Amino acid sequence: MREEILNFLKENSGYISGEELAQKLGLSRQAFWKHIQDLRGLGYEISAVPHLGYRLIKIPDRLYPWELAYRLNTKFVAKKTLYYKNVASTMDIAWELAKKGFPEGTLVCAESQRRGRGRLGRVWLSPYLKGLYFSIILRPKISPFKIGLISLLSSIGIVEGIKRDFDLPLSIKWPNDILAKERKLAGILMELDAEQDRINFVIVGIGLNVNTSKKEIPPEATSLYLLLNKRIDRVKVFKNILEEIERTYLSFQEEGENFIISNWRRLSYLYGGRVKVILPNREIVEGRVLDIDQDGALLLRKDEGIVERILSGDVEKIV
Amino acid sequence: MREEILNFLKENSGYISGEELAQKLGLSRQAFWKHIQDLRGLGYEISAVPHLGYRLIKIPDRLYPWELAYRLNTKFVAKKTLYYKNVASTMDIAWELAKKGFPEGTLVCAESQRRGRGRLGRVWLSPYLKGLYFSIILRPKISPFKIGLISLLSSIGIVEGIKRDFDLPLSIKWPNDILAKERKLAGILMELDAEQDRINFVIVGIGLNVNTSKKEIPPEATSLYLLLNKRIDRVKVFKNILEEIERTYLSFQEEGENFIISNWRRLSYLYGGRVKVILPNREIVEGRVLDIDQDGALLLRKDEGIVERILSGDVEKIV
Repeated sequence: MREEILNFLKENSGYISGEELAQKLGLSRQAFWKHIQDLRGLGYEISAVPHLGYRLIKIPDRLYPWELAYRLNTKFVAKKTLYYKNVASTMDIAWELAKKGFPEGTLVCAESQRRGRGRLGRVWLSPYLKGLYFSIILRPKISPFKIGLISLLSSIGIVEGIKRDFDLPLSIKWPNDILAKERKLAGILMELDAEQDRINFVIVGIGLNVNTSKKEIPPEATSLYLLLNKRIDRVKVFKNILEEIERTYLSFQEEGENFIISNWRRLSYLYGGRVKVILPNREIVEGRVLDIDQDGALLLRKDEGIVERILSGDVEKIV
Repeated sequence: MREEILNFLKENSGYISGEELAQKLGLSRQAFWKHIQDLRGLGYEISAVPHLGYRLIKIPDRLYPWELAYRLNTKFVAKKTLYYKNVASTMDIAWELAKKGFPEGTLVCAESQRRGRGRLGRVWLSPYLKGLYFSIILRPKISPFKIGLISLLSSIGIVEGIKRDFDLPLSIKWPNDILAKERKLAGILMELDAEQDRINFVIVGIGLNVNTSKKEIPPEATSLYLLLNKRIDRVKVFKNILEEIERTYLSFQEEGENFIISNWRRLSYLYGGRVKVILPNREIVEGRVLDIDQDGALLLRKDEGIVERILSGDVEKIV
């Protein structure tokens, strides 16, 4: 009911009569007033003028599930959303939910994380109200060997989602980062529960620096705020990203690996470049990035001419 | 203390004086008698003859953890064992323990399973006291893309473990079965908790038909009992397998993928043969099995000459 009142207020730029609205919704004046007060408590600025009625002045900067759901154009992503002010990590919550059987597309988001993490146990700083920190449950019907593709398609979704509203030079850095001007804007973490032949579920975790200031993130990072020099509507960019991740995921299901490979080529930071890769065993290999393969592995042509298939590692461009 | 009494009894083929033994262990005659009664309650046959003392006549056909631990020659496998009479699946228990941080090598075994499972949600029949149904927690420092190797090395361990005592024509059928005379003797299931770059843990689940009769297993299966025409000491074969799995695992850590590949070639049912593979997408490919690669994938040369890398599927030999 609160949501319905909110939607009425949103869809009217002028004042609407409280009495009429209450009547329409079958509410007593008192119940209606209680809802307005609740909304104000949640941070909504609602002006009330005698004889004129109510008008929505300002929506708070919060990732409330009903704000995300409002006109969100998805089939399954964020159809169920769990919202937290502060959590250790959205990954752990999403994992528990997935284990309990929550459906594909279930979203867990938080305004801040105490122990946000990146790949290999690294930290992802998640200051309060400054970024998007979320995890999505996916249940792709692919071999666990192809899991790298899920991280790449999420990257594509993030880039396309941001590009809808902002003309920024974004690129995807294999295996799991989004860069802008050589700095890290977003990162992806995946945790999977799998058998040898199939994935039970993957949790895709995404951290995006939105309104983060310079001192809140590591030196090698950036944020939309720093890139655009203005505060960004987090809900809007979040919805764009959720829609684009779903679109990319569905396209992958229809068109297969080539959809990801061609988009990766188009958006890749590394494609064709000379790189140094630090492998998980600390070994270092150098070469030119030829492509990615059907499993999302990086194909590196070493100077001796041999092509190495790289499944994981940290990559640096050599200029 | 009960275990110490048991070990004394085991290590003496003749009678030992209860009074002396009680004294040695610092027990009262009453306390000692209580332990003997407990052991009898657990199924141990212990004869007591006045003036002579006690003698162990028979060890029950149970996978008691202290029986497994008795003279078990391992560094980490089964150093911690959880034993159950009946469970839904040892996989689920091992998973929960691994999540809680139980160490590598932790073993969960059961005398029967209500919902023992195989690959792809298939059923693994687990009748009471007839087989070995167990799960081991492993934490290999390898990429999740190489998980197939863990199933292969477990297969090698099972075959070597059984072969210690029995001269049987055993072979490994990629990806996860042990065959004897074209029939399934054992199966392996893996469930993993992983990130893109590392494995948090793998649960290796093994089902082995030991004293199972024809009517207790599917027609395409067999058991050690059916193959050897005699009842088998489950504890003995279990210990051999646990030791060989550890040995194989440690050799893999030292020598790398080639250790698994060469052993696979030696023991493989499919190596060099013509096969039909049903892929997860129901597509069928035919060809000759060339080898497995560094990730444990099957390399199939199709009739057109193209070599296909198969990550998962059901394989049948074509005669």
